[in-house]
Amino acid sequence: MYAISIRESGGPEVLEWVEHPDPEPGPGEVVVDVVATAVNRADVMQRQGMYPPPPGASEVPGLECSGRIAALGSGVTGWSVGDEVCALLAGGGYAEKVAVPAAQLLPVPDGVSLVDAGGLPEVACTVWSNLAMTGHLGEGETLLVHGGSGGIGTHAIQVGKAMGARVLATAGSPERLQTCLDLGADVAIDYHDDLPTEVASATDDRGVDVILDNMGGSTLKANLAALATGGRLVIIGLMGGPKAEINLATLLTRRLSVGATTLRARPVEGPDGKGAIVASVREQLWPLVAAGGVRPVIHEYLPVAEASRAHAALDEGGVVGKLVLVVRDEDGVLSG
Amino acid sequence: MYAISIRESGGPEVLEWVEHPDPEPGPGEVVVDVVATAVNRADVMQRQGMYPPPPGASEVPGLECSGRIAALGSGVTGWSVGDEVCALLAGGGYAEKVAVPAAQLLPVPDGVSLVDAGGLPEVACTVWSNLAMTGHLGEGETLLVHGGSGGIGTHAIQVGKAMGARVLATAGSPERLQTCLDLGADVAIDYHDDLPTEVASATDDRGVDVILDNMGGSTLKANLAALATGGRLVIIGLMGGPKAEINLATLLTRRLSVGATTLRARPVEGPDGKGAIVASVREQLWPLVAAGGVRPVIHEYLPVAEASRAHAALDEGGVVGKLVLVVRDEDGVLSG
Repeated sequence: MYAISIRESGGPEVLEWVEHPDPEPGPGEVVVDVVATAVNRADVMQRQGMYPPPPGASEVPGLECSGRIAALGSGVTGWSVGDEVCALLAGGGYAEKVAVPAAQLLPVPDGVSLVDAGGLPEVACTVWSNLAMTGHLGEGETLLVHGGSGGIGTHAIQVGKAMGARVLATAGSPERLQTCLDLGADVAIDYHDDLPTEVASATDDRGVDVILDNMGGSTLKANLAALATGGRLVIIGLMGGPKAEINLATLLTRRLSVGATTLRARPVEGPDGKGAIVASVREQLWPLVAAGGVRPVIHEYLPVAEASRAHAALDEGGVVGKLVLVVRDEDGVLSG
Repeated sequence: MYAISIRESGGPEVLEWVEHPDPEPGPGEVVVDVVATAVNRADVMQRQGMYPPPPGASEVPGLECSGRIAALGSGVTGWSVGDEVCALLAGGGYAEKVAVPAAQLLPVPDGVSLVDAGGLPEVACTVWSNLAMTGHLGEGETLLVHGGSGGIGTHAIQVGKAMGARVLATAGSPERLQTCLDLGADVAIDYHDDLPTEVASATDDRGVDVILDNMGGSTLKANLAALATGGRLVIIGLMGGPKAEINLATLLTRRLSVGATTLRARPVEGPDGKGAIVASVREQLWPLVAAGGVRPVIHEYLPVAEASRAHAALDEGGVVGKLVLVVRDEDGVLSG
């Protein structure tokens, strides 16, 4: 098969569509004929040499895909060859074929095309695990989504609304602020403004119950100031650096918590493993997608062989939603 | 009635047993004829002027008591005059009488004397809310209790064991380390030793799932290093200062969380208010106490008029468990 190799750590040009050995399904795995995959920030970091694949994972980038099951490994039940699926991957999605544990497979939600489903598992599992499982976002609470126009942000705004929360979102330009509002955000906040002031003004000085943050160190202090009593800060990215001073008295007096997670490093098994997240997404989030309350937001479709052009676009900024890399058309004809 | 006044901020000698107006029960409150109260670290901080009572609370120190109900305010159901009770207070316990919301009353657990029950509500509600409700400590998990020989620590070791956890505890002298073991701790760690090294050695390099910490800033880095993947640090005191540098990458890669709480500042109502905590303690912790798995640990009984001597003892250190201040004997005879 063909797949993307990272020739060496560097810019988008290091991505090459070259021959690879076909993957074989291990016990409990299936092999998927990939129809589409999508670009995530983690792929860019992996390309730059800053986020090596976890032990045992493919060197090929790509944390999600859609496609059809081509082969079943031993012990796999509940799935058949030919099933249309999408999947959360530990890597290997930028390829014609990928092997994946059956516990990380999802059906394609009703109303979503097989191509569009290739950009859904990573955002869906990231957003659902952090809002529902880590952040315990409740109906009637208030959620603040940072980076509201990005791949995760566009999904998180919709999921927050579908969960019955009031949603505030940040973005950096008038067009992107409008995107947040179009996706259902109740309030859009320019991240150049003072966050605690804007949040206070939007919440009658109460603050927000949950924050989904992709910056880390640079926004820690402002995020803590923007939380309501009992609020939970959930950090899923460190684009603003990992280190910060923290005033634990701020947490203590208002009963705040700070948690941080990654999806890729989780094991398949266990109460907070990928399998548990995928099962929860299938049971609780997929019905919200099927009901039309949560839609894939896709910035552009590109052939997978042009992954370097997609990475260059993400590096440059201005991408709203996901960049989907098409491997086959829906009839199975390879695009490479 | 008589009660303790804090003449001015300062040392133990500022505590004076003087006349006060009798409290009246407001709507939803009862007045308790106090049999015993107990000393908490927060009382010492209040005496020093560093922890003023929350708005509306009594200026008299004392966050817990036991006694008999003397009067019911309007709207109180489920309790009668003469009932033996213990109670979580927002203040006012160092007194012959105290008014308390009925939602903060608890029955005296089976097998505990009325005097000993005066030192139970604050540790019980603190430990239970933080281990069960904030820390989500599960059966079979591992708990690390800092300050294992103190008032909260002696209780937390027992509760952790009764919840089915493996318990590690820290203390600062051979006698106190032995106390931790006698209370059921599986491993006792001298806090002069390197915490992450000791924890790694006691957990096959896995780390602990929940830490109950009373230090804050000074132990933040070591605590994070001692947590297992998915671990939760729960901070309930800042004796080591409020500020520290935090490396959020440590949290992100191992899915850690840091939460901090106080009990006194919580409202009576709400999902994490005092009433909800008291109800959970009554339903889930009191049966463990009645079954004998969790016992009050009392360092000394003193007459309440000698509260200054009790404070001096806590200031000096070396107290194991609680200092109980006796207001009446069990027959109702005043000790003042």
